[in-house]
Amino acid sequence: MAKEKRVEQITDMEVDFAQWFTDVCKKAELIDYSSIKGMFIYRPYGYAIWENIQRIMDAEFKRTGVENVYMPMLIPESLLQKEKDHVEGFAPECAWVTYGGSEKLEERYCIRPTSETLFCEHFKNVIQSHRDLPLLFNQWCSVLRWEKTSRPFLRHREFLWQEGHTMHATAEEAQAETELMLNIYADFCENVLAMPVTRGRKTDKEKFNGAEATYTVECMMHDRKALQAGTSHYFGDGFAKAFDITFTDRNNQKAYPHQTSWGVSTRLIGGVIMTHGDNNGLVLPPQIAPIQVIVLPIAQHKEGVLDAAYGLRDRLVAAGLRAKVDDSDNSMGWKCAQYEMKGVPLRVECGPRDLENGQCVLVRRNDGEKTVVALENLEQAVAEQLELVRKGMYEKAKRNLEEHTYEAYSLEEARNLQQEKGGFIKTMWCGELECELKMKEEAGMSSRCMPLKQEQLSDVCPICGKPAKHSILWGVAY
Amino acid sequence: MAKEKRVEQITDMEVDFAQWFTDVCKKAELIDYSSIKGMFIYRPYGYAIWENIQRIMDAEFKRTGVENVYMPMLIPESLLQKEKDHVEGFAPECAWVTYGGSEKLEERYCIRPTSETLFCEHFKNVIQSHRDLPLLFNQWCSVLRWEKTSRPFLRHREFLWQEGHTMHATAEEAQAETELMLNIYADFCENVLAMPVTRGRKTDKEKFNGAEATYTVECMMHDRKALQAGTSHYFGDGFAKAFDITFTDRNNQKAYPHQTSWGVSTRLIGGVIMTHGDNNGLVLPPQIAPIQVIVLPIAQHKEGVLDAAYGLRDRLVAAGLRAKVDDSDNSMGWKCAQYEMKGVPLRVECGPRDLENGQCVLVRRNDGEKTVVALENLEQAVAEQLELVRKGMYEKAKRNLEEHTYEAYSLEEARNLQQEKGGFIKTMWCGELECELKMKEEAGMSSRCMPLKQEQLSDVCPICGKPAKHSILWGVAY
Repeated sequence: MAKEKRVEQITDMEVDFAQWFTDVCKKAELIDYSSIKGMFIYRPYGYAIWENIQRIMDAEFKRTGVENVYMPMLIPESLLQKEKDHVEGFAPECAWVTYGGSEKLEERYCIRPTSETLFCEHFKNVIQSHRDLPLLFNQWCSVLRWEKTSRPFLRHREFLWQEGHTMHATAEEAQAETELMLNIYADFCENVLAMPVTRGRKTDKEKFNGAEATYTVECMMHDRKALQAGTSHYFGDGFAKAFDITFTDRNNQKAYPHQTSWGVSTRLIGGVIMTHGDNNGLVLPPQIAPIQVIVLPIAQHKEGVLDAAYGLRDRLVAAGLRAKVDDSDNSMGWKCAQYEMKGVPLRVECGPRDLENGQCVLVRRNDGEKTVVALENLEQAVAEQLELVRKGMYEKAKRNLEEHTYEAYSLEEARNLQQEKGGFIKTMWCGELECELKMKEEAGMSSRCMPLKQEQLSDVCPICGKPAKHSILWGVAY
Repeated sequence: MAKEKRVEQITDMEVDFAQWFTDVCKKAELIDYSSIKGMFIYRPYGYAIWENIQRIMDAEFKRTGVENVYMPMLIPESLLQKEKDHVEGFAPECAWVTYGGSEKLEERYCIRPTSETLFCEHFKNVIQSHRDLPLLFNQWCSVLRWEKTSRPFLRHREFLWQEGHTMHATAEEAQAETELMLNIYADFCENVLAMPVTRGRKTDKEKFNGAEATYTVECMMHDRKALQAGTSHYFGDGFAKAFDITFTDRNNQKAYPHQTSWGVSTRLIGGVIMTHGDNNGLVLPPQIAPIQVIVLPIAQHKEGVLDAAYGLRDRLVAAGLRAKVDDSDNSMGWKCAQYEMKGVPLRVECGPRDLENGQCVLVRRNDGEKTVVALENLEQAVAEQLELVRKGMYEKAKRNLEEHTYEAYSLEEARNLQQEKGGFIKTMWCGELECELKMKEEAGMSSRCMPLKQEQLSDVCPICGKPAKHSILWGVAY
């Protein structure tokens, strides 16, 4: 007796994008809520996506010489206070430990919101000579920021991330590292996650607390809002001076090293959902999909069908793919809907007639395209289709970005474009905080970045009319 | 000009084993101290060992169907209190968060000392029917226990571990899972870490707070003390009842699921150091060594030597090994001492004369044995030598265990053996707490486990003279 199991409906994304997003996170079994507001449970399917991101990115980091470490999760308040800008930015959203067992602590400790201060303390112990540099460290961990509002993947009080921290003998080397890591993030977003990005520099208002410069990778979501997908910071020697970290340089002189940090988080998963998802659920880029190919036998009670399905699965697994068979007694309709909800990039259908004809059917998740392939060509055909899925996803997202990026030459034009069309608005900018605040107040947009590829749209700032210094991208951000 | 760099001396392990251990942790660059007592920094070399352990063990878990998840790091006090034995055991050593930003929290949260309560809260949300079972979850994370004393790897206030949590439809299935995981731990210790183990069950006094039964893997260190290397717990339905987790069974009846949890931590690294290390430093089992083979060119300024060394390294890397060349201008003596300190399992020496003769020299870290091999056989010879390193390490540790395990037939005999020889003392036991406490008080030994392979040494408990129920292993433990 077939089970009467139905895939529940999710909210239409064009009607209520926020509710659609929450529905997908729950129905695709990515996330569960805990009893503490803003602290989410990463369920197996959601965590497996993160494991795939970690594996690929970790190999990229290591290829450039980065080594993984693990620092304590607690920061003494006095340590956090050593760098003035840094503590001002983070202290208001720290969670504080005040008791160890039944004893009140002499000094309170915060759970790391980020670990610059801890790394600096360690750097001071291990850096003596220029021979000890560069130090290229990274850690995979969770951090905690006690924010008022929360949403799955986008804003957690506790979230998973990686934070890289490096020390260099010269400013040039540190700047090169900042750039290298920004490019690794950007390439990862584009090539692995199929998310087109804009690489740029943050304004002083939007930069990381304590940094000299923050570089960012900005993406556009399906609803035309902006998501900051990753950041890379250049610190100069500010922290080194605050923590008194010095080394003996090649000329036997005492010098301060130059520092970077860089990070991405499980926010990337939120970005993937909101960039690629549709009204049938998740659409996952093949490289990070926990299941890349789902094999669905048709009329599986008929002789030979199930064995054939297992055989196809085994061949795909042998080819290095993450493939599964669903041999449950759920209906074919339910199964199709279920794996669409879960965003599995490719479905293989095989029934008695297909097998008789020595073929099977491949169905792409992103556009529903069906391809009949000869069984003997399975591995090659699946690899080709997965690449087409990735390309198709990227092209679609790229179109969304291009179609909703506008140029504006006055504050009014910028406001109208954002209100009527939404998306990214490109303008020139004088560089003054006042104009940035005015754009926020009157057009509801924050500055996303000053793109690395600068354009000369005009000579003047459209807000104040003074000479322009940069081209800049504005948007409504998550 | 060659640098005058010397490998610093470490304390003789036979003179002061504790100081030797600390010296190795520091000189091999495994650990650094942070400003919070008992919270250590895992440095790149130490963390790389943990990454190798994780990779191998994670694959073993997944092979049995386990899925990784991530739970929040904070537990509301009310949630921790739901299971009475559990909270009694853990509350005294919890670190408590009382402030979020500048606001005092209505309820305080502890940083997880272990996550049974968090998993139970989630299980309640996701278990409805027998079709949802078993649930086989694991997470890699850090936990916090606010202990008074601390030592690198052996006792941290914050340490890295994995905790598996599973739910099953029947007691039998849960018991089988407990056993399966104990055997995975035991096989990992023996085959990967080259540490012989005793598999056994803990007494009620020593079992995990809230468990029905705790199984353990016990190892003997070089100084003849015991180390608990991993534990696997069977909970029955105790937590399920406390958290009101139920499911509809095959007969459509409401039932409580049966639960397990199991964990190993970075303590394993402490075990490896203390089992295999010697007065030259670390000795690492090949499978977890960050560098498996170090290639040292002799007279590297001579033409062709360095290129030959790189060539050998490239061949080893192509064969899937973690191999490196040290081409620094440090002396050969310094390099040999350095990689011995770091426990690199195999050294390859190649100088001009070796190359002329088409050969190189392999030197094993564990016993210093040298083997001359023809260059064309490099890959095979290295693989063979690495396996000999592993076997040699295991045999040596096994001898230590066997030579220092004694049988005793009276409390006095047990005490004398421990005082004069040290090691594990095997006796019979009546099963009463009173006798266990007496052994502790009068002979300074805690019960390590009741070995799964039970022996009949005599009919009576050597402590009280009453009928014996179990054979049991005693020792002085870390």
